[in-house]
Amino acid sequence: MELIDGKAVAAQIKSEIAEEVRQILVSGGKRPHLAAILVGHDGGSETYVASKVRTCEELGFQSTLIRYEDNATEKELLDKVVELNNDPDIDGFIVQLPLPKHISEQKVIETIDYRKDVDGFHPVNTGRMAIGLPCFVSATPAGILELLKRYRIETAGKHCVVLGRSNIVGKPVASLLMQKSDPGNCTVTVCHSRTRNIEAYCREADIIIAALGSPGFLKGNMVREGVVVIDVGTTRIPSDKTKSGFKLSGDVDFNAVAPKCSHITPVPGGVGPMTIISLMKNTLLAGKKAIYQ
Amino acid sequence: MELIDGKAVAAQIKSEIAEEVRQILVSGGKRPHLAAILVGHDGGSETYVASKVRTCEELGFQSTLIRYEDNATEKELLDKVVELNNDPDIDGFIVQLPLPKHISEQKVIETIDYRKDVDGFHPVNTGRMAIGLPCFVSATPAGILELLKRYRIETAGKHCVVLGRSNIVGKPVASLLMQKSDPGNCTVTVCHSRTRNIEAYCREADIIIAALGSPGFLKGNMVREGVVVIDVGTTRIPSDKTKSGFKLSGDVDFNAVAPKCSHITPVPGGVGPMTIISLMKNTLLAGKKAIYQ
Repeated sequence: MELIDGKAVAAQIKSEIAEEVRQILVSGGKRPHLAAILVGHDGGSETYVASKVRTCEELGFQSTLIRYEDNATEKELLDKVVELNNDPDIDGFIVQLPLPKHISEQKVIETIDYRKDVDGFHPVNTGRMAIGLPCFVSATPAGILELLKRYRIETAGKHCVVLGRSNIVGKPVASLLMQKSDPGNCTVTVCHSRTRNIEAYCREADIIIAALGSPGFLKGNMVREGVVVIDVGTTRIPSDKTKSGFKLSGDVDFNAVAPKCSHITPVPGGVGPMTIISLMKNTLLAGKKAIYQ
Repeated sequence: MELIDGKAVAAQIKSEIAEEVRQILVSGGKRPHLAAILVGHDGGSETYVASKVRTCEELGFQSTLIRYEDNATEKELLDKVVELNNDPDIDGFIVQLPLPKHISEQKVIETIDYRKDVDGFHPVNTGRMAIGLPCFVSATPAGILELLKRYRIETAGKHCVVLGRSNIVGKPVASLLMQKSDPGNCTVTVCHSRTRNIEAYCREADIIIAALGSPGFLKGNMVREGVVVIDVGTTRIPSDKTKSGFKLSGDVDFNAVAPKCSHITPVPGGVGPMTIISLMKNTLLAGKKAIYQ
């Protein structure tokens, strides 16, 4: 069994990006610039955005954080989005989700210029991904594919079972892995809450992407020997062993499943560290105008 | 075994649409207007476009056919697309594919205003479909879902095996059937040229959507009793029994498979007749601004 070390891969990619930024600056190019809009003071969102800003600094990106209070209006936010769309210095930007209930997330997402949509949530990016065209792929699916790639895990002709059909993980990762590409060329099955006898699908899988948000869902008797398991679950569960009072739990019963795996991601330290770095990779691509002019 | 009669369903929907157009006109509304751009003289394209224009007439739609010779430039075509985008009288329009090789189909598709993209090929429509938002769904997948609906075929919790991963059938029908919707809520497996042991997947399926373009691919020993089979194949094969010298062949060995099915579509007369009527349904929705303002 080989542990997939997302932290190490993320660190590796980080140094690759930082090196590329240095090269860009040496040759007189423009420093990539990521902006983030944060509305309100949700604890998780504060942490994520702070981490994104810090990573920008480490990579040599410029970053701009734009904050609004919870009572910001939808119009204020949309006006800011349009302003960022039109600001030639901003290469890409994100609006940290979730937003307060009185603001339509979908409207905000669709107002972002898809050429600056480094989160990959705009329908143009989602649609181009489904068709197999170059686009900004959202961070978690992109991170999963990068892990498969860097660990040279064969995907062509393999049966990949995706557990979960969320718009941000299950559906896009299924879409990516069925493409005529590498990684890709998988036979893909998408299972979800309405699937009957989900164990049977899992037992037949060569690769399982677990993204249900159900702690410890995948048990040892649900997988076969030699399976590759990517655990996308990150549910906070109470714990008296950590200072914060909680710990992150994946969708996989790691101790029971790991011994049967050829490769498995831990939680934390697997897919998690890949998400921010995937966003940074998209920002670099945006800065280089590598996907859209 | 019940035969799914696409011709009868299409006729039924046709009369429903015609009735709705009459109501719209009676209440002083605007007659739906579909435009079609046809470049060159490809035999298949001529037939399809003629059939679309004729169906418009039968339904009480206005239609406009715009023709170009094979040597039309990409710019001419793109200019016309922009003109149609801006013409308030045109509710929806299509550019008949394939286009001559010197014109980028993708560029043309992405230039169409997605709010008039009644073919549902624009990334905004593809992307919104994947996310489960209202959009123009392309004709063949929409027609397949309509058949499942009108024959009251239970899909929730069923295992649907999609054979083929094309952008116009396999991928979108898989995407639609995995949504939290009705029809939908299927466990979906997408098989394709790189799938190993495709027979095993077929034998486990409750519903098979065959869209490989491989005549007679699905044999009697590859399906289980009670399966629902939707045959999307329409390959022209030579025949000395028809005037035209060819006949249409589906992806299913009908005589061998049909006796084991609960429901099956014939070729011709199954999915085929549903495609044009699905385009007309989209045009009606565009005219009513039922999806986009």
